[in-house]
Amino acid sequence: MLLQSLREQVLEANLELVRRGLVLYTFGNVSGVSHKDRLVAIKPSGVPYETMAPEDIVITDLDGRVVEGDLRPSSDLPTHVELYKHFPSIGGIAHTHSEFATAWAQACKPIPCFGTTHADYFHGPVPVTPQLTPQEIATDYEKNTGLAICRKFEGMSADDVPAALVAGHAPFCWGPTPAAAAHHAVILEAVARMAYYTINLSEHAATLPGALQDKHFLRKHGKGAYYGQGQTK
Amino acid sequence: MLLQSLREQVLEANLELVRRGLVLYTFGNVSGVSHKDRLVAIKPSGVPYETMAPEDIVITDLDGRVVEGDLRPSSDLPTHVELYKHFPSIGGIAHTHSEFATAWAQACKPIPCFGTTHADYFHGPVPVTPQLTPQEIATDYEKNTGLAICRKFEGMSADDVPAALVAGHAPFCWGPTPAAAAHHAVILEAVARMAYYTINLSEHAATLPGALQDKHFLRKHGKGAYYGQGQTK
Amino acid sequence: MLLQSLREQVLEANLELVRRGLVLYTFGNVSGVSHKDRLVAIKPSGVPYETMAPEDIVITDLDGRVVEGDLRPSSDLPTHVELYKHFPSIGGIAHTHSEFATAWAQACKPIPCFGTTHADYFHGPVPVTPQLTPQEIATDYEKNTGLAICRKFEGMSADDVPAALVAGHAPFCWGPTPAAAAHHAVILEAVARMAYYTINLSEHAATLPGALQDKHFLRKHGKGAYYGQGQTK
Amino acid sequence: MLLQSLREQVLEANLELVRRGLVLYTFGNVSGVSHKDRLVAIKPSGVPYETMAPEDIVITDLDGRVVEGDLRPSSDLPTHVELYKHFPSIGGIAHTHSEFATAWAQACKPIPCFGTTHADYFHGPVPVTPQLTPQEIATDYEKNTGLAICRKFEGMSADDVPAALVAGHAPFCWGPTPAAAAHHAVILEAVARMAYYTINLSEHAATLPGALQDKHFLRKHGKGAYYGQGQTK
Repeated sequence: MLLQSLREQVLEANLELVRRGLVLYTFGNVSGVSHKDRLVAIKPSGVPYETMAPEDIVITDLDGRVVEGDLRPSSDLPTHVELYKHFPSIGGIAHTHSEFATAWAQACKPIPCFGTTHADYFHGPVPVTPQLTPQEIATDYEKNTGLAICRKFEGMSADDVPAALVAGHAPFCWGPTPAAAAHHAVILEAVARMAYYTINLSEHAATLPGALQDKHFLRKHGKGAYYGQGQTK
Repeated sequence: MLLQSLREQVLEANLELVRRGLVLYTFGNVSGVSHKDRLVAIKPSGVPYETMAPEDIVITDLDGRVVEGDLRPSSDLPTHVELYKHFPSIGGIAHTHSEFATAWAQACKPIPCFGTTHADYFHGPVPVTPQLTPQEIATDYEKNTGLAICRKFEGMSADDVPAALVAGHAPFCWGPTPAAAAHHAVILEAVARMAYYTINLSEHAATLPGALQDKHFLRKHGKGAYYGQGQTK
Repeated sequence: MLLQSLREQVLEANLELVRRGLVLYTFGNVSGVSHKDRLVAIKPSGVPYETMAPEDIVITDLDGRVVEGDLRPSSDLPTHVELYKHFPSIGGIAHTHSEFATAWAQACKPIPCFGTTHADYFHGPVPVTPQLTPQEIATDYEKNTGLAICRKFEGMSADDVPAALVAGHAPFCWGPTPAAAAHHAVILEAVARMAYYTINLSEHAATLPGALQDKHFLRKHGKGAYYGQGQTK
Repeated sequence: MLLQSLREQVLEANLELVRRGLVLYTFGNVSGVSHKDRLVAIKPSGVPYETMAPEDIVITDLDGRVVEGDLRPSSDLPTHVELYKHFPSIGGIAHTHSEFATAWAQACKPIPCFGTTHADYFHGPVPVTPQLTPQEIATDYEKNTGLAICRKFEGMSADDVPAALVAGHAPFCWGPTPAAAAHHAVILEAVARMAYYTINLSEHAATLPGALQDKHFLRKHGKGAYYGQGQTK
């Protein structure tokens, strides 16, 4: 069986979404990539989490063709593939319809950085893509979804803001590993929820001062980080 | 005992509402129909879910008369019966007072399609009935509730939008089986919750472009569907 | 030990508040009354629910003097006593700081009847008392809280609306038994939550038409009731 | 091992935050102080709660230097230390990013006293600090956070209001023991949630009359208290 370890990481990250209450029924999907092998491991489409095993994880190439596995991959696979091709530092991707992050996506609004919880993980607002055109929807819809995210990140670092909202749809999150991608999906939902409460408390709430955004992001990330026990997350 | 298998399906679908947190105490009811036998299997009225067994499910005919069972059927039975008589493709109905769907019903507002989660299951807004007249309330109230739903669906397909909100009351959901009806009740509540958050984020939020509504509904339903493993849901 | 059965009912009703998530730490209290014995059984003040036993329930007379028990009764006892003296049909009282009912009390607004869930249990809006005067707060505060509820119900039936909100404080609920009082506290919280969502969806949402309020209350209560299996709740 | 009992209290108080749903992953931290020994016991930074043991708790002096322990202390340690140096009656501090309290902090608004639940624990509004200056962020950020709280409490009693919101960040709570600090963090979140609901129900909701704020705070605290069984909380 190809990529046994990556399959296990992908399965575990998918189950983390279940444990954290981010997915309903078969919603959501996490994948991982082996850039060396140019292969992706992704959750199968519409299969219950309760019985999912490493051998159910589908292995595809970077054109989205199944290389190993009896099941169909998640229908969002072409979105994942575009992100892997565009962002070489990404090792895992998590897609959920978690409720508050999805509400921001449905409102077509980026999530402003209102506090240090956000700044600890996302260096700046979490952006939202523009709506796709009817042509982009009609042909290669899922691939075009990925391209829309990539275009949105022109001039931005995917490592500094490891998530995007797709307009009218839901978030995609990523990280160096499948576990990190799922972790960011959980944090994003908490951040989206607190941002929702914040603007309901104060319609024109100010975003966090830039110096404080930098401080919190950099005390957890990069070479001067001093949060945690010294290992990278 | 009549319709053993349908009784079990109806019981299981009722318990799914409990597991998903959609019902409080004895609230809610799911039924199933055998169109061939012209018989309905429905939850008894006001009986605790914890001890409910297949033999407690009440069997009635399509005039709402008990054919088998010692308990009274749910007081909403006449609503279920009207839907079964009017929509021959429906095999199960789930009624809950789930909190966000009920809030939309209480506000007498249809749930707009704000995102792909909605479009995956409901092809267009989830409609709300007009208020019943005092005469409709005074006589055959529960039957008139069903008729109000049927009238609302004139010119619409009950298969494309498997749910309706009854004004000032709560949702009724349906599907080809009791399990599908309960599944739709769970999804409707999630969709109602996210739509609530969406309009609180953006009072005049735009609905999802029609092309994207079609794309998502049709990638899961109908002959070109490619979501899941090829079985119908 | 006096009133063994009533102690057990009161304990069980207190624990129901815990199971339903209505109380935090030692918040909340349920009591029961024996009108025949002119005795009240009430939760002790500030004792953890986890270890509470029937012998911890405090027995007092209708002047609030402890008749049996080593612990202090709930500090809200004088409120309970006033309600028992004023409403002879009440057999149990439940007081919580459940979050949505308390929010309505803090906003000093009655809970309008927006839907059939409300109408199934409360025949009309759940009223809120006026704020107490500084004099009423300074002396016999808890007793005056009870008197404010009684005054608010002049011309109303405590059986038809088994709950009141105390302005700036929280709800008191009641019923023929301690279990019914706790049941009403759980329902009130659900109704308060859905009413909150409703006015956030539609600031000037209309209340349920009177004919429908009557229909739902009367299909569950009184001599023409046809909900449930014929036993009274 | 130094301060075995204090380590155990600090561990237990940290776990209370987990049990009450106030922290996500490794978020949050509780510490305790021995004013006699001039030593602080605090949660290590970024360590999972599931496996945390008393020996993982880090002991530092009141300058924030590690005296015993192999792990790094929480990065918020300098904030805790300032509070201990400034408020001699404080024996424990709990810091969380609990969602509603954090939303008020992000909105840079104090939590008004809208009800008796608030008044039972906090004698007046829960204040919010001003934003730190860029200089205060650049150097000794965590220490300056503590100093901002201390300045905010000039003329106020830390015993009467055992919590503060740090603007754009989150709450810090305290009490005579680590357990009391965690208890106040749990109550603060409930109070913050109900205050959020209250202003959403009534934008200009009035705060609780002063006489009633005094009544509730003083029936639980101080020498005339009559809530509970006579022990201090």
